[in-house]
Amino acid sequence: MFSRQILKPSSKDEGVYKALSEIFGEEDVSKSELDRISYSRDSWSKTSLWLRDGEIRYPPDYIVWAKDVQQISRLLRFAQEKKIPVIPFGGGSGVCGGTLPIKGGIILDLKKMDKILSLDDKSLTVTAEVGIIGERLERELNRKGYTLGHHPQSIYCSTLGGWLAARSAGQLSTKYGKIEDMVLSMQVVLPDGDILETKTTPKSATGPDFTQTFVGSEGTLGVITKATLRVSPYPELRAFSGFMFGELALGLETIRKILRRGVRPASVRLYDPLDTFVFKLTGEKKESKGRRILKMAKDKVEDLIFLKPQMVNKLASLVKGRCLLIFMFEGDREIIETEKRVSDNICRVEGGEDLGEKMGIRWWETRFDVAYNLSKVFKSGAFADTIEVAGTWDKLFNLYEEVKSAVSPYAFIMAHFSHAYKEGCSVYFSFLSRGKDKEESEELFSKIWELALSACAKAGGTISHHHGVGIAKANFMEGELGGAMKVYKRLKQVLDPNNILNPGKMGLDK
Amino acid sequence: MFSRQILKPSSKDEGVYKALSEIFGEEDVSKSELDRISYSRDSWSKTSLWLRDGEIRYPPDYIVWAKDVQQISRLLRFAQEKKIPVIPFGGGSGVCGGTLPIKGGIILDLKKMDKILSLDDKSLTVTAEVGIIGERLERELNRKGYTLGHHPQSIYCSTLGGWLAARSAGQLSTKYGKIEDMVLSMQVVLPDGDILETKTTPKSATGPDFTQTFVGSEGTLGVITKATLRVSPYPELRAFSGFMFGELALGLETIRKILRRGVRPASVRLYDPLDTFVFKLTGEKKESKGRRILKMAKDKVEDLIFLKPQMVNKLASLVKGRCLLIFMFEGDREIIETEKRVSDNICRVEGGEDLGEKMGIRWWETRFDVAYNLSKVFKSGAFADTIEVAGTWDKLFNLYEEVKSAVSPYAFIMAHFSHAYKEGCSVYFSFLSRGKDKEESEELFSKIWELALSACAKAGGTISHHHGVGIAKANFMEGELGGAMKVYKRLKQVLDPNNILNPGKMGLDK
Repeated sequence: MFSRQILKPSSKDEGVYKALSEIFGEEDVSKSELDRISYSRDSWSKTSLWLRDGEIRYPPDYIVWAKDVQQISRLLRFAQEKKIPVIPFGGGSGVCGGTLPIKGGIILDLKKMDKILSLDDKSLTVTAEVGIIGERLERELNRKGYTLGHHPQSIYCSTLGGWLAARSAGQLSTKYGKIEDMVLSMQVVLPDGDILETKTTPKSATGPDFTQTFVGSEGTLGVITKATLRVSPYPELRAFSGFMFGELALGLETIRKILRRGVRPASVRLYDPLDTFVFKLTGEKKESKGRRILKMAKDKVEDLIFLKPQMVNKLASLVKGRCLLIFMFEGDREIIETEKRVSDNICRVEGGEDLGEKMGIRWWETRFDVAYNLSKVFKSGAFADTIEVAGTWDKLFNLYEEVKSAVSPYAFIMAHFSHAYKEGCSVYFSFLSRGKDKEESEELFSKIWELALSACAKAGGTISHHHGVGIAKANFMEGELGGAMKVYKRLKQVLDPNNILNPGKMGLDK
Repeated sequence: MFSRQILKPSSKDEGVYKALSEIFGEEDVSKSELDRISYSRDSWSKTSLWLRDGEIRYPPDYIVWAKDVQQISRLLRFAQEKKIPVIPFGGGSGVCGGTLPIKGGIILDLKKMDKILSLDDKSLTVTAEVGIIGERLERELNRKGYTLGHHPQSIYCSTLGGWLAARSAGQLSTKYGKIEDMVLSMQVVLPDGDILETKTTPKSATGPDFTQTFVGSEGTLGVITKATLRVSPYPELRAFSGFMFGELALGLETIRKILRRGVRPASVRLYDPLDTFVFKLTGEKKESKGRRILKMAKDKVEDLIFLKPQMVNKLASLVKGRCLLIFMFEGDREIIETEKRVSDNICRVEGGEDLGEKMGIRWWETRFDVAYNLSKVFKSGAFADTIEVAGTWDKLFNLYEEVKSAVSPYAFIMAHFSHAYKEGCSVYFSFLSRGKDKEESEELFSKIWELALSACAKAGGTISHHHGVGIAKANFMEGELGGAMKVYKRLKQVLDPNNILNPGKMGLDK
């Protein structure tokens, strides 16, 4: 791979490399083929298809590693002048293609800006540079007796900046909120190189909330460089519950009633019949005989899934499966015990079969495992992806059914409900499919997404709860934001007239 | 007053009146002197000074009463074309001059748009037009078994639209959040007449949060016409606690520790020694003999306050007064009882003297009374106002002391802490003073504000927790927003190039 040249060389303008070296130092600028290939993709499943097929579709011209905000300011002034795209990059764990350099240009890697700057144990805030990997931030907080309470699936490979840029949610969002609920203030470099810092204050009534203008902007309006977030004392107690429900709709109603009472579980997860089946299979730690047999059966089913997803979906729907509902509570012992008691009672009244804490603990202990199996799927010639939408309770069950039935003809699909709130909940679909060849796979992949998001939008849901938009959902942004898309476009235009910051994303260029 | 003409007539361009009549119908357009005088002010104390002195400083040219969003859209298209200012107006309860038509133009009164459009008892949301008076909205929700949980002092005379435009806080903000935490989506008419509607979704990851771009914009970026907000079931239980602390700092520490534990009181209020004294005096319902004597003493003190505020402040500071801390909890019985028990225990451990529920109940029952005494103050020749700032816990006590000592030479000043959050709290100062004459009063008023906000900003606080900015705090916006002020100005410029929407406010024109 390294012996022959795969990519065209970076822009022939040697002035760019020289200018970047002046800003960052030569050790922190690269135009090597290896780096350009590495940064040509993120964790969007479509890029895994390309990778499998040996295709390097969007290599950047340069990669720079920033060490401080001034370097970024200088970079943006330079890029603005030369009209060169700049794409902020954290862990590359985004699953919507949000960091692909589709118009070439400079990848701005922020992982060297990874310092925890201060922990205010009185005001319960932490201030950190955004390049820090999430797990390290959480671990350092834990060592000092605190938690951010933000545990996304990607925590080992995603950065604080990525979380903020794409409105990330952690597994405990029911208690702690999403990242946009945790952030109090940020430092942002605007596309023209100016640096702004919003104020750290509990609440304010001084105009629009400009922190929330940049949170979720996925690098299109500015580069987030530093943030101050709420933290909580490390929980005194962590408690788990598990219940089995005869029907999905009943499980959903139960969650709704619990939250309505004012109970705040840290995490709530309700698996649909198929996902319940898979959860029960894959969570076992010991390799029992029964387990081995089940696993073999599962392998057979998987083969069938790839060949005839529609048939498997139909078969699965005939099995009147039960649905697993698990809870995790954490916080002050006295409060948590009361809330768990209230919650458990509602589950029993609603007809849930009490499974004790076992299923919840299993989820907690194995919750990061699944991601490591994805590459096997792709290697096998198939593809898999997840779609995380959300809706208010009045629309939720219908939304689930509509998306599922839209995708069913083309992929094996299952779902769980997590990230529950008083007003609604997220639905997390996982799908698995396979095309005959490279072209058909890519086409099928796009079709499934198109169908799923159309069905979601039609059912009144939001097309993303926490994965963001990037390229994957860009076509749906007009429909999602409606008239606000005009405001977004105008803001982009006035802040970044040359469209250098992460161009081609979020549907802004349409 | 009506027999002679006080104001210059509205703009001589009869075309304006005619065009407005075509949009709104003649019955909903006025250029009468009476209406123009009425709408020349809001509840900013400075306008009370003007009123007392018979001065009509900022009469609008026209007043229109909108009945639907299409009328507003047409109005803004017309006004944009003719470059006539339009000032959205709700209850006129704003205390920062935010609705004064300082450049003339058209007052757009929204109070005829007062319908509750839907209540979703599954998703716990209410959708209403913004002209509805807050108390009616709450009452209608109560009748159906729900509460918005938003009880600002102004609830009887402020509208939903005003709350949203100025980031209002209710007395139960510790549990329910401020209005920006309750709102899920809004309909907004942009300055060019286009109508946008954000999506009602529990949470989303689809770009910046444009609802939060218009919340708090005080009519400068668009006219908010409709909103969907979270509601809660009407509380099963309401419980009160009261404790007396020997020192203010100790009371503050106690609040901080309680919130840190995860307890969510609906309301927390800590009065400084002077405010504790006044609270105890004014809350009594029965007119006992002791009370009458105290009242006489108070009247004498008041005379002294007006003459020598600095001396009274000094005397007051010598009296080592105790500080009253009260709590209100509401919600599910089982959860509330636990949280109250945890909270009460912390208060006792921290050295608070348990007063039972009496003081809390008194506050709850008399909490809307004080506002009705303000006109007496102005009639007596003095003036009074309140300053509500906020800061994180690490800065809070210093912030309180700095603001107090900055204002002390010029006014009698006291404060309480309310709207407490895990990361900080608001400080609500009340001041009372008097100038020798009209000019000196106005000068003194401005000076006190200038000193208070400078001290607040220097101590790291935010210059407004929930009253907004308007004109009163406009000069401090650059300091408050820093680099984000540039974003605000650019957004204003691109959305409202002719600067017709509420011009001259929020420091945007500087």
